[in-house]
Amino acid sequence: MKKNILIVGAGAVGTVVAHKCAQNGDRFGAVCLSSKSLRKCEAVLRSIERRGYPRARACRLVAREVDARDTRALIQLIVETQADIVINVCTAFVNMSVIEACLATGAAYLDTAVHEDPAVLNAPYPWYANFEWKRREDFARRGLTAILGVGFDPGVVNAYCAYAQRYELDTVTSIDIMDVNDGSHGRFFSTNFDPEINLREVIEDAGCLEDGEWRTYPHHSRTTTFDFPEVGRKKLYLMGHDEVHSLSVNVPDVKTVRFWMGFDDHYLNCLNVFEQVGLLNHREVTTASGQAVVPLHVLKACLPNPASLAATYTGKTCIGALVSGKRDGEDREVFLYNVCDHEAAYADVGSQAIAFTAGVPPVAAALLVASGPWDCETMANVEELDPVPFLKLLKELGLPTILRRPTTAGFDEELVLFDDAVPPSDAPSRRPGIDAPGSLSPRKTSAHP
Amino acid sequence: MKKNILIVGAGAVGTVVAHKCAQNGDRFGAVCLSSKSLRKCEAVLRSIERRGYPRARACRLVAREVDARDTRALIQLIVETQADIVINVCTAFVNMSVIEACLATGAAYLDTAVHEDPAVLNAPYPWYANFEWKRREDFARRGLTAILGVGFDPGVVNAYCAYAQRYELDTVTSIDIMDVNDGSHGRFFSTNFDPEINLREVIEDAGCLEDGEWRTYPHHSRTTTFDFPEVGRKKLYLMGHDEVHSLSVNVPDVKTVRFWMGFDDHYLNCLNVFEQVGLLNHREVTTASGQAVVPLHVLKACLPNPASLAATYTGKTCIGALVSGKRDGEDREVFLYNVCDHEAAYADVGSQAIAFTAGVPPVAAALLVASGPWDCETMANVEELDPVPFLKLLKELGLPTILRRPTTAGFDEELVLFDDAVPPSDAPSRRPGIDAPGSLSPRKTSAHP
Repeated sequence: MKKNILIVGAGAVGTVVAHKCAQNGDRFGAVCLSSKSLRKCEAVLRSIERRGYPRARACRLVAREVDARDTRALIQLIVETQADIVINVCTAFVNMSVIEACLATGAAYLDTAVHEDPAVLNAPYPWYANFEWKRREDFARRGLTAILGVGFDPGVVNAYCAYAQRYELDTVTSIDIMDVNDGSHGRFFSTNFDPEINLREVIEDAGCLEDGEWRTYPHHSRTTTFDFPEVGRKKLYLMGHDEVHSLSVNVPDVKTVRFWMGFDDHYLNCLNVFEQVGLLNHREVTTASGQAVVPLHVLKACLPNPASLAATYTGKTCIGALVSGKRDGEDREVFLYNVCDHEAAYADVGSQAIAFTAGVPPVAAALLVASGPWDCETMANVEELDPVPFLKLLKELGLPTILRRPTTAGFDEELVLFDDAVPPSDAPSRRPGIDAPGSLSPRKTSAHP
Repeated sequence: MKKNILIVGAGAVGTVVAHKCAQNGDRFGAVCLSSKSLRKCEAVLRSIERRGYPRARACRLVAREVDARDTRALIQLIVETQADIVINVCTAFVNMSVIEACLATGAAYLDTAVHEDPAVLNAPYPWYANFEWKRREDFARRGLTAILGVGFDPGVVNAYCAYAQRYELDTVTSIDIMDVNDGSHGRFFSTNFDPEINLREVIEDAGCLEDGEWRTYPHHSRTTTFDFPEVGRKKLYLMGHDEVHSLSVNVPDVKTVRFWMGFDDHYLNCLNVFEQVGLLNHREVTTASGQAVVPLHVLKACLPNPASLAATYTGKTCIGALVSGKRDGEDREVFLYNVCDHEAAYADVGSQAIAFTAGVPPVAAALLVASGPWDCETMANVEELDPVPFLKLLKELGLPTILRRPTTAGFDEELVLFDDAVPPSDAPSRRPGIDAPGSLSPRKTSAHP
């Protein structure tokens, strides 16, 4: 029996989710795209129609209007659509109402970002404990699956860490998530996803685990550089990010978990102007004519709709996990990453790479929940699940994983994980009871930096 | 019989006007401060009370609420307060309703900025012809006085031009108004007067008269540098400004009239971000929640209230008119200017220098209308009136004029105009029937640049 999907949110990421579901329509029953704007949902369905994906007709695609803050309305919609799996890619302010609706109806729950209270910046560490994890026992008791943060980062990078932990290292001591968008959207300033979420997260304190301690730094106050595959050396800034808050809890003995994101000077300049002037405020100001307005909402209304950037976006993203630890008593560092091309993403689903990398993973997760391997019957973060079927499926869906690791010859090798073109690797699992990860394909060999 | 004053507008400039009127309370009858916020007016009156100006008690100070866009309400207020002279220092969007109220009641009219239609950027040249000058005949027919643009610039600089034309040159060929604020308000970004007006004017096309032709340039596309007295060499940008639109019409045979303003890189950077993102738009945008908002109104609500900058403002403004032409067949260039210190302005009336320089001149003009010399019984721009009593009075009120002019020895001399410390100059008027301008006091002699 094929599973029915309810997508909540029809923004840039929801659009990718809907397109990817349609591309894999034969693997799903009905797929409902819902948002507070029926018009937006219908526009996405029309864009799917226009693309004429061969397998789209195998599933039933419908659009529905719903206020995702309204648990009762969500329950009604889940019941009406007989949704087995809810993919919540709406704003991060609504997670808990969707979670409640899933608990009430028995639908599995997937999301890509941790719940946020719009009034709270710099929520206590670990973020997941503030809202989602409080409901973990309820999911476990019901035997109901909820997978938190299954976008790219958080999400795929958590799986990279799990992979490194299982197959590349005996112990993990340090994780650095590296995220750079080397793309160009050609607009003066734009966020790549909901400005309300993006512009909040980039001005939050940068929290990280370092040397076993939780530490926070003012935003953009710590930098590093990293030589990314394909896109080159970039300046990165320490940032708070969801995955730091689960990896630091879930990866045994890890001492350091940090998230680094690339920002160019122009972006930071604009951000600084917005922030200093108060345009990122979530608190209402009153205009001279007495209108009460949230500045960030107005800034968002002025900025480009992230979905509108896709057609002319060029360049690539590179997002990965630099994981280090010990193997056979020796220090070892591996980098698992994906490079996503904006134009290729647009050719595939009509979206830019940021939305693509965030929207494809929850579809992979939904397929794994539907088919069993990830139907974990509790609430889990991605690093708690088997990374292999996920990374395999992601490769098929357009997000291949590259593993860069040192060789005994003193060089780094780069391998495409799960490349069916070559026979399965004989790489042993580093954990008892875990299978070998499957095929590894040599990609290229680069000199050690 | 002392004249009654109605001040319309209780912003930063209106505050200075009210304070200066109170300082000279013995020269006025009643002074009414009105604005759409009675609370603001009352706060200004309390600040006057606290300062305890010795002559304030000689006049009656009252506060009234009025919507300056409502001509009938204004008429009622003029009648109620028996106002002889209306000083309009409200937003430039309301001039015409105040003008209509003055015409209806026979009150004299003064303002400091040309009328603007909020929906129109880059109004046709000359700006005064779009609204105010259409009513000139009505003022002339009634024998009623209206003095347009009698702030500092426009206003005092127009008088500088008239002075140069009368006493320093036989013919004026070129006028460059130079305006720099070398002050520091210590805030990340602030305009020095109403952001809605200021941020509009700085992104309008820069219109000027050059070589006898009206020309426009994209804003901030033409620069020059000028070595200002006291504040030093500054980078200036060509800008559209009210006085260019009257001087180019009213100064006979003038071929070039330009306005230049100093901007530092930080201001321009912020301005560029605001403009590019669309935050300077006067057209409504709709937020995700469906609220219709004018971005500029929200930006204004986020920015500091210009009046709030005064207490900690340091540094000086220098604003002047560089006027060149012929005298006795020789090329000659003179620079008439004022330097205003932010801290001195604060000590005097509790305001910063930008508001001070804009707010003191209309009080001087009101005194001259009240006492006769400027009761011109028609509508006039400042350059059409005798500059001498005005500049004399301004010196008394805290805005002395310095004249820098070349000497035959090849040096520049700097003279304080109307310095009573020295006997009257014997400088002859350059126009038949015009008296000598009064005392000139040598100030300092600087080497010719």
